Amino acid sequence: DPLADKRHEFELPTDTIYLDGNSLGALPKVVKSKVAQVVSEQWGQDLITSWNKHSWIDLPIKVGEKIASLIGADKGQVICCDSISVNLFKLLCAALKLNTERKVVLSTKDNFPTDLYMVQGITELLGDDLCQLQTVEESDIEQHLTDSVAVLMLTQVNFRSGKLLDMQKLTRLAHEKGILVIWDLAHSAGALPVELDKCQADFAVGCGYKYLNGGPGAPAFLYVAKRHQQATKQPLVGWMGHAKPFAFSPVYEASDNINHFQSGTPSVIAMSALDAALDVWEGVEIQQVRQKSLALADLLIELVANAPSLHEFVLCSPKEGNKRGSQVAFAHQDAFAMCQALIEKNVIADFRAPNILRFGLTPLYTSFQDIESAVSFLEHIVQSRLYTKARFSKPQKVT
Amino acid sequence: DPLADKRHEFELPTDTIYLDGNSLGALPKVVKSKVAQVVSEQWGQDLITSWNKHSWIDLPIKVGEKIASLIGADKGQVICCDSISVNLFKLLCAALKLNTERKVVLSTKDNFPTDLYMVQGITELLGDDLCQLQTVEESDIEQHLTDSVAVLMLTQVNFRSGKLLDMQKLTRLAHEKGILVIWDLAHSAGALPVELDKCQADFAVGCGYKYLNGGPGAPAFLYVAKRHQQATKQPLVGWMGHAKPFAFSPVYEASDNINHFQSGTPSVIAMSALDAALDVWEGVEIQQVRQKSLALADLLIELVANAPSLHEFVLCSPKEGNKRGSQVAFAHQDAFAMCQALIEKNVIADFRAPNILRFGLTPLYTSFQDIESAVSFLEHIVQSRLYTKARFSKPQKVT
Repeated sequence: DPLADKRHEFELPTDTIYLDGNSLGALPKVVKSKVAQVVSEQWGQDLITSWNKHSWIDLPIKVGEKIASLIGADKGQVICCDSISVNLFKLLCAALKLNTERKVVLSTKDNFPTDLYMVQGITELLGDDLCQLQTVEESDIEQHLTDSVAVLMLTQVNFRSGKLLDMQKLTRLAHEKGILVIWDLAHSAGALPVELDKCQADFAVGCGYKYLNGGPGAPAFLYVAKRHQQATKQPLVGWMGHAKPFAFSPVYEASDNINHFQSGTPSVIAMSALDAALDVWEGVEIQQVRQKSLALADLLIELVANAPSLHEFVLCSPKEGNKRGSQVAFAHQDAFAMCQALIEKNVIADFRAPNILRFGLTPLYTSFQDIESAVSFLEHIVQSRLYTKARFSKPQKVT
Repeated sequence: DPLADKRHEFELPTDTIYLDGNSLGALPKVVKSKVAQVVSEQWGQDLITSWNKHSWIDLPIKVGEKIASLIGADKGQVICCDSISVNLFKLLCAALKLNTERKVVLSTKDNFPTDLYMVQGITELLGDDLCQLQTVEESDIEQHLTDSVAVLMLTQVNFRSGKLLDMQKLTRLAHEKGILVIWDLAHSAGALPVELDKCQADFAVGCGYKYLNGGPGAPAFLYVAKRHQQATKQPLVGWMGHAKPFAFSPVYEASDNINHFQSGTPSVIAMSALDAALDVWEGVEIQQVRQKSLALADLLIELVANAPSLHEFVLCSPKEGNKRGSQVAFAHQDAFAMCQALIEKNVIADFRAPNILRFGLTPLYTSFQDIESAVSFLEHIVQSRLYTKARFSKPQKVT
């Protein structure tokens, strides 16, 4: 395992098996000192002068470029800002304006809810003459790529099943029909090789707090292909996206680069945490991450399949690695109680309604031993019927 | 000075006179340990379980309620989220939907630019049949409150001049004409008594990083009067605003409380910093803050007026305290160079284009001695013509 040493760069609780890095990535040690330094020295001592002295003003671009190298994007196309929800709103509105003769946003029924909600919000705002959400099964996407679709909005890796969509093929098929594509990389950035430029992707958004380990609610990012940047207008035109923000002009004039997709003032502390977290990737080949991820998943799937007591767990991730992201999901009628019982044993997986037990595999710090131990605990819980003792009988708030 | 001891609760650089808390508030000492604890323990050790265990999920409401007590808002009306720009977008769209027969957003020519930009973005998005920005001089607001205005959007304290608008009167006059009012409290929350409920304000936004000392780019907040919450629809409908976010339903259903104004996942680290910073206000009466602020400003104005070498500095803040926020601004043709020269003497004020030298007064940590020393330095700079040695001859990026 060439990545085994990377684990030491993370602060992980002892006696805990953490298989939920696809919900919240673990803490890179370097973040602790970086955040302390930003708070005590940059903010505390240098105060307002840090916008220049410590280049706070350049953080969104700096962090964006670090992320760009993980998602196959050339320079000048990625910026760190806001949340996925807000960034999707910007890009959806922008894409609808570019494809103004059409109104349909095509997505999948099982896309992450906030993605679908943002389209619903735009429909409510603009009216269904200008924006209509159409959702289909993942298997039916291709047949719905018609001349009436304005935007195809897809999450590359399904948040429940871990199913991986074919970015290259779907983007090409969409383009053949004049459809713009927005990719949500929440479960793929840092999890597997993403090749936005090579796939000729139009737009993308992604998350800083999962596989990029930027901390809870870390700022998100967005990608706009260079060829679209001049013509693209996003509606959340805040001062940080202005060509000359410190001229304090009363009239908005968009920056002529990716900065234009920023809105208000970003959180420097939160973005600095992500900035430091991204340094963990130095010297890491994303192909190594992918290989280990697939090996971890194959081991997990095999161990569960071969454990007689776990026969009620139904694999709902694709069995073939090349169709899967970096997680493995099983359906079980008591998935919620099982998840709680695992957590009580310090095995952190997560539950997704209605009946999914989801294991996130984060090769920078997940070990093969983690997988073996987790399955042993699960067998023990099932055999001892410990999960009937779980405190909750039905879904509660669990992130 | 009953607030003199509060200064010890802040980490301030020695030998620096900091008069820019209206741009970035100083670091409350308690924030350092709180942020370290959130990073190392909550994130590092308890990981994803912290959403419940450390009530991360409740932070936006918790922090919102702390702010509410400083701005005269009863419970359930304030939430901490996103940036001022993004929050203005939500509230502007919502207010236009409530006042659907009208389209004009009335504001002031000299409002903070991002506020005006957000209206311009909405006009671009919805078309000028549905949204039109009209800007007038501050002195002319009243005469423009007509039946055609949908929304009056005002910043209570002008970011350049420090002029304080009469919230109670303007809100009442606007309501008489059927106009909804959005107040931007960027330069008033934590600076002076704000009475949103008493003034029957409809909506407000505000800033976490100025007088609330939440750190660079701290999350912002918004206020929606209880009477509007059921009927108000904001367009950035992300999963954190859903009635049941963890049901992962594909259809958006707005939470029936102020939560509905959240969008995506908030930064826990950034919001925890603001949360801790707000504890500095324990035991502080906002009236004490106001009294000291006025006394500091009066001293500054008087010292400058009485210094013969400073006769070229033209006061552009109102002379009467009750018409002024918590800053004092002077116009001078070399304001930019003067500001740079002051900074080189470790007197941190700020410059606002085209010719404003702005001094922020933050009574929790600004002392009367600070004011006297700052004016002495300014006299010295002018007398010695040190400002001609300033490195920049014209406005550059300075926040």
